Amino acid sequence: MTNGLVLSIDGMGGDSAPDIVVEGVDIFARSHPDVRFLVHGDAGRIGALMDKYPAAKAASEVVPAEKTIGMEVKASQALRQGKGSSLWNAVQAVELGTAHAVVSAGNTGAYMAIAMFRLRTMQGVHRPALATRWPTMKGGYTIMLDVGANVEADAEQLVEFAIMGEAFARAVSDEPRPKVALLNVGAEDQKGHEEIRSAAKLIRETDVDINFQGFVEGDDIAKGTVDVVVTDGFTGNIALKTGEGTARLVGQLLREALTSGPLAQLGALIAYPALRKLRTRMDPGTFNGALFLGLNGLVVKSHGSANGRGYAAAIGVAEKLARSHYREEVVANIQRLSQANANAAAAAAAAGSAK
Amino acid sequence: MTNGLVLSIDGMGGDSAPDIVVEGVDIFARSHPDVRFLVHGDAGRIGALMDKYPAAKAASEVVPAEKTIGMEVKASQALRQGKGSSLWNAVQAVELGTAHAVVSAGNTGAYMAIAMFRLRTMQGVHRPALATRWPTMKGGYTIMLDVGANVEADAEQLVEFAIMGEAFARAVSDEPRPKVALLNVGAEDQKGHEEIRSAAKLIRETDVDINFQGFVEGDDIAKGTVDVVVTDGFTGNIALKTGEGTARLVGQLLREALTSGPLAQLGALIAYPALRKLRTRMDPGTFNGALFLGLNGLVVKSHGSANGRGYAAAIGVAEKLARSHYREEVVANIQRLSQANANAAAAAAAAGSAK
Repeated sequence: MTNGLVLSIDGMGGDSAPDIVVEGVDIFARSHPDVRFLVHGDAGRIGALMDKYPAAKAASEVVPAEKTIGMEVKASQALRQGKGSSLWNAVQAVELGTAHAVVSAGNTGAYMAIAMFRLRTMQGVHRPALATRWPTMKGGYTIMLDVGANVEADAEQLVEFAIMGEAFARAVSDEPRPKVALLNVGAEDQKGHEEIRSAAKLIRETDVDINFQGFVEGDDIAKGTVDVVVTDGFTGNIALKTGEGTARLVGQLLREALTSGPLAQLGALIAYPALRKLRTRMDPGTFNGALFLGLNGLVVKSHGSANGRGYAAAIGVAEKLARSHYREEVVANIQRLSQANANAAAAAAAAGSAK
Repeated sequence: MTNGLVLSIDGMGGDSAPDIVVEGVDIFARSHPDVRFLVHGDAGRIGALMDKYPAAKAASEVVPAEKTIGMEVKASQALRQGKGSSLWNAVQAVELGTAHAVVSAGNTGAYMAIAMFRLRTMQGVHRPALATRWPTMKGGYTIMLDVGANVEADAEQLVEFAIMGEAFARAVSDEPRPKVALLNVGAEDQKGHEEIRSAAKLIRETDVDINFQGFVEGDDIAKGTVDVVVTDGFTGNIALKTGEGTARLVGQLLREALTSGPLAQLGALIAYPALRKLRTRMDPGTFNGALFLGLNGLVVKSHGSANGRGYAAAIGVAEKLARSHYREEVVANIQRLSQANANAAAAAAAAGSAK
């Protein structure tokens, strides 16, 4: 590994790979000349693209990979047959220590499976989680996790998600003490599932070092009430997709309204630069870059349909994480959680033997 | 009870009651001269308002109620002290058979508690559910339930929600065979919780008469993929609030964009009529009218902040339900479900004794 930061890139993952990937690397490289890239994939195609993107070419080493994992491939299939693919090799570079983080816009299930298989779960973490960012009314982002890696999560897992999400938030924002809350159907202590109430109790009763704010509701995600919203992967996935669907619905209704007659069209034409800015702000590419948390390595997922700018945003997430103390912070808090659990178990055993 | 349709109205429930309530009754009464209203509440205030709204006055009987249940009152408190309130009396009119349905924009928890206490759950239904309507890209509505009455729901309850939601959809739309689906994190059979997979199996294996489409995801709600989306009250409440929050976020960003400079403002001014139509279409008032399903009586909830037109929409839901075969259809399907469960239990017992 060189002295500088090295990022491993799956050159072939995503709807418009490798074109968008190389463009994204180029955009990022122009403002970050100190970062190097290992771009895995079809060397002929990627090499030809690099000629069009000089900043990407100067910062990258193209690492040939003999195959590509398609979007339709199942996770189990990817594990059996994925060796030698651009995705597999990109992950392996992190495992071997030749890169500090990996980015792919490819098949999510295959990516998660290969990353878990090669990098393994961090000690003390039961299951990895998938975290995404949402734009908020305050102008920043809310990080939400889990959004689909685990259909169910018990209290201890929810606390692990809180710990990992908090360190992620600090790494990618300027907030030194990100606010963390559990997603619930009301703010009162007695609301919600047993798992959520127990998780809140566990955070409050252990010395896990996070700025915990209790419960928030679904509308707090877009409000930006807290920096990190913690939930199980079932609820998180449904909330994420419901939000995306609603944003698309409003966008469609707006387009219909602004093309509904000559006056509306004229108004839209005059307001066009402002409307284009709105579109950019709502574009998932702008806040692109999900993270698989809880693995021995930094694994960033770009949206499959991200454009070059969106891909560069995902690379930015990987870079910020790689330069942060994310791992050490998670390890320290997970140890506090494990210690609290061990103490509780010892106390229970002592109480039992004293009988 | 007179020969025509009678609706019982909580005159004092809602953020701007009784004003908005009387205005809503007036708007509805103008196009439905055959419907009569019992308006419960402060007879002096409501009577004075009626003088301003002649259609409401002609169609209504004001029923004096000595008190009002505030928005801050807890459900348990409402049950203990709510007797004689406008909300209590409005529900009781349905119990006594003097009205065909009740509408209130008041305290949701108190309303649900009083309605359950006075009207009781329909035979064969384990727990009532709360259903709301969402606008869709297709121009119609998706009905979603449960959105908050039950934090958890087992497979049989989910099937009951499906049965009740389907009958609700037919009552308020022109769709004779509404499409019903369970909300999940993927469309494949093996996805999701045990409860959801069992519910899908139960619907397919019993002769419950609904047009069942399997699983849908969060973004299908706004797409309008199906007419009825079924989920537990935890997931449903979070999806609903996340969607509302996202719609508000996009609305705020649009306002910011259209006031960001003189050109944007000019464009917005010219396109104003179209933008106002968009606003109306996204206004929750337009699709106002949630339903507590599964009680011995039709119980409609208006949004607390609905305007007169929104309140009239909620009255419209009550009227359509009261004129429909909602109750008979639910009873028939619940019987099919109970019969299937009884058969399964008998088969299991026979298999046990044959050993």
